[in-house]
Amino acid sequence: MSDVETAPSQITISVDGMGGDYAPGEVVQGVLDALKTFDLHVLLVGQPEVLKAELTRRDVAWQQRQLTIVPAQNVIDMGESPLTAIRKKKDASIVVVADMVGQKKAQAMVAAGSTGAAMASALFRIGRLPGVDRPAIGVALCTPQRPTLLLDAGANADCTPDMLHQFAQMGSVFMQALYPPENHQKPRIALLNIGEEPGKGNVLANEAFDRLRQDSSLNFIGNGEGRDLFSGKADVLVCDGFSGNIALKAAEGLGKVLGHFIKEELSSTLQGKIGGLLAKSALTRAKNRFDPEEFGGALLLGIDGICVISHGSSHARGIFNAIRVAKEAVEGQVIARMTKALVQDEASGDA
Amino acid sequence: MSDVETAPSQITISVDGMGGDYAPGEVVQGVLDALKTFDLHVLLVGQPEVLKAELTRRDVAWQQRQLTIVPAQNVIDMGESPLTAIRKKKDASIVVVADMVGQKKAQAMVAAGSTGAAMASALFRIGRLPGVDRPAIGVALCTPQRPTLLLDAGANADCTPDMLHQFAQMGSVFMQALYPPENHQKPRIALLNIGEEPGKGNVLANEAFDRLRQDSSLNFIGNGEGRDLFSGKADVLVCDGFSGNIALKAAEGLGKVLGHFIKEELSSTLQGKIGGLLAKSALTRAKNRFDPEEFGGALLLGIDGICVISHGSSHARGIFNAIRVAKEAVEGQVIARMTKALVQDEASGDA
Repeated sequence: MSDVETAPSQITISVDGMGGDYAPGEVVQGVLDALKTFDLHVLLVGQPEVLKAELTRRDVAWQQRQLTIVPAQNVIDMGESPLTAIRKKKDASIVVVADMVGQKKAQAMVAAGSTGAAMASALFRIGRLPGVDRPAIGVALCTPQRPTLLLDAGANADCTPDMLHQFAQMGSVFMQALYPPENHQKPRIALLNIGEEPGKGNVLANEAFDRLRQDSSLNFIGNGEGRDLFSGKADVLVCDGFSGNIALKAAEGLGKVLGHFIKEELSSTLQGKIGGLLAKSALTRAKNRFDPEEFGGALLLGIDGICVISHGSSHARGIFNAIRVAKEAVEGQVIARMTKALVQDEASGDA
Repeated sequence: MSDVETAPSQITISVDGMGGDYAPGEVVQGVLDALKTFDLHVLLVGQPEVLKAELTRRDVAWQQRQLTIVPAQNVIDMGESPLTAIRKKKDASIVVVADMVGQKKAQAMVAAGSTGAAMASALFRIGRLPGVDRPAIGVALCTPQRPTLLLDAGANADCTPDMLHQFAQMGSVFMQALYPPENHQKPRIALLNIGEEPGKGNVLANEAFDRLRQDSSLNFIGNGEGRDLFSGKADVLVCDGFSGNIALKAAEGLGKVLGHFIKEELSSTLQGKIGGLLAKSALTRAKNRFDPEEFGGALLLGIDGICVISHGSSHARGIFNAIRVAKEAVEGQVIARMTKALVQDEASGDA
């Protein structure tokens, strides 16, 4: 695997210094934390005077060797239409962040804030991997065992069996690189469906099932169900972006209302109040195991570069973890391996 | 409502005495509890000697006036293919339960156990409402406010905009009867989608959105998202059975793993252990607010009779609540009102 075009020893990651609810402060802090921990070069994109002020308030010495500020005067707001905004504001930080990868000045990009703007920038300024119809959003979910990657989590509302097959290929490569299974097997791929038996589900799921089953390069373990988002049954759970997004948000909704009910019930009796006080830190730890900042963000797979899109509400820890995931994906040569998997499949499909 | 062949003043409900993991004991107990609470007649279907033995162990006096045992020698097991089983075993309890409604001897059926067998029996022995393409499964979800009815929760993996429109009509009538909104408005209908703005979602959702918006007989409030399964934003959340089932099970999966994490974290420190002991009953109460036995079961809407399908693991309380829901639906004249809504719509569609 020496066919990857990067600086031999150092990984460069471009980071949107202006994106997200807590930019630039928390982003800068996350970047500095990452630079203290990993051997990296960061291209920090945004308004230079603003970013410099944030750096000056913190640890300036680190900038010199590992951090370069790349100027971008504009910012795309959460409310703007992503497509219109990236066309109009070519000097927006998120566009320049993607440009760094598109121009091979960085191997990965990290951005918090508007998922739509990050996706559009990546798509138009970096481009897709050869043979990829539509990039997908991958989200890592917490299970009692290893994380499960759900994709597509919402980029493509309507999918074809071919797209689901590509999602499986990309997810397999990604999870192999970031969470290599201990038994030296390939990541377990399951199809998100409404029953475990073959033949279950809608037309799309049935056709995708056959496609996945026929691909011997995948470790396809059959159908998974909604509950397998969190069961650890599969390493990759493949679905169309409509079902995937609804499933994710339904789980989010349950978590929210359950938290609400727990608070209500604890405060309804004196014993509950005391128990709740003593149990508070344990309950918070349980909740935090689902914290999206732990994984750093959603992945945009199918782009010719690593793209990690952090939640708009990310703090320094979220940015730090997004950079960590980006770095591990670059080290794992995810892009070269995905390209190879997709090209090989296309070749065998033509044969 | 005088076209039903029963005692004019009394509601008759046929109940599968043999269905579910805890039949016949818990079913018989649930029936007796319901008969003590409501003015009902129950046709208890199953093996007479087995059911009589269960009744004899309990309160026999009640049988005389309000309970009739209807013999059915066979039982369909959870593992059997529903379609094959109901064809082969015409004397299976679930088939006879549906027959009672089909023959107008009861206005509602209640069965625990195989959803597939109950659906198939209802479909073939009772039949559909005029104009209904495909019956849907409705599941009532717990929110901080009134319950939300999700449908379709899994009966139809592939749906058309017409089907989603019918689900909305049926759900509206049902929730109007069981949970009439306090402000005298009609139940709020939302379309389950991946964004709130019009124009979001897949082709099906977009077409269904237009259809729902155009129907002035519905109180359509626009798109809902996955989190709205539990937010209380809508009274009825309409979706295809594929997304609906996945959303439900994803939430179930999150609940399970969160419970697991809470236990782990509580037991990891002494303070957590003590807090957990004191908080235990409050945590259990919070969990129980999602208990499916509270609502009694899933509803099969689109059948020419009330069908409540309880979870296979239902205890007496689940059966009691299923009978309560069935009774309220009969009292609310749900079937006559649904028929009217569907026929009116068909007439206006033809015009």
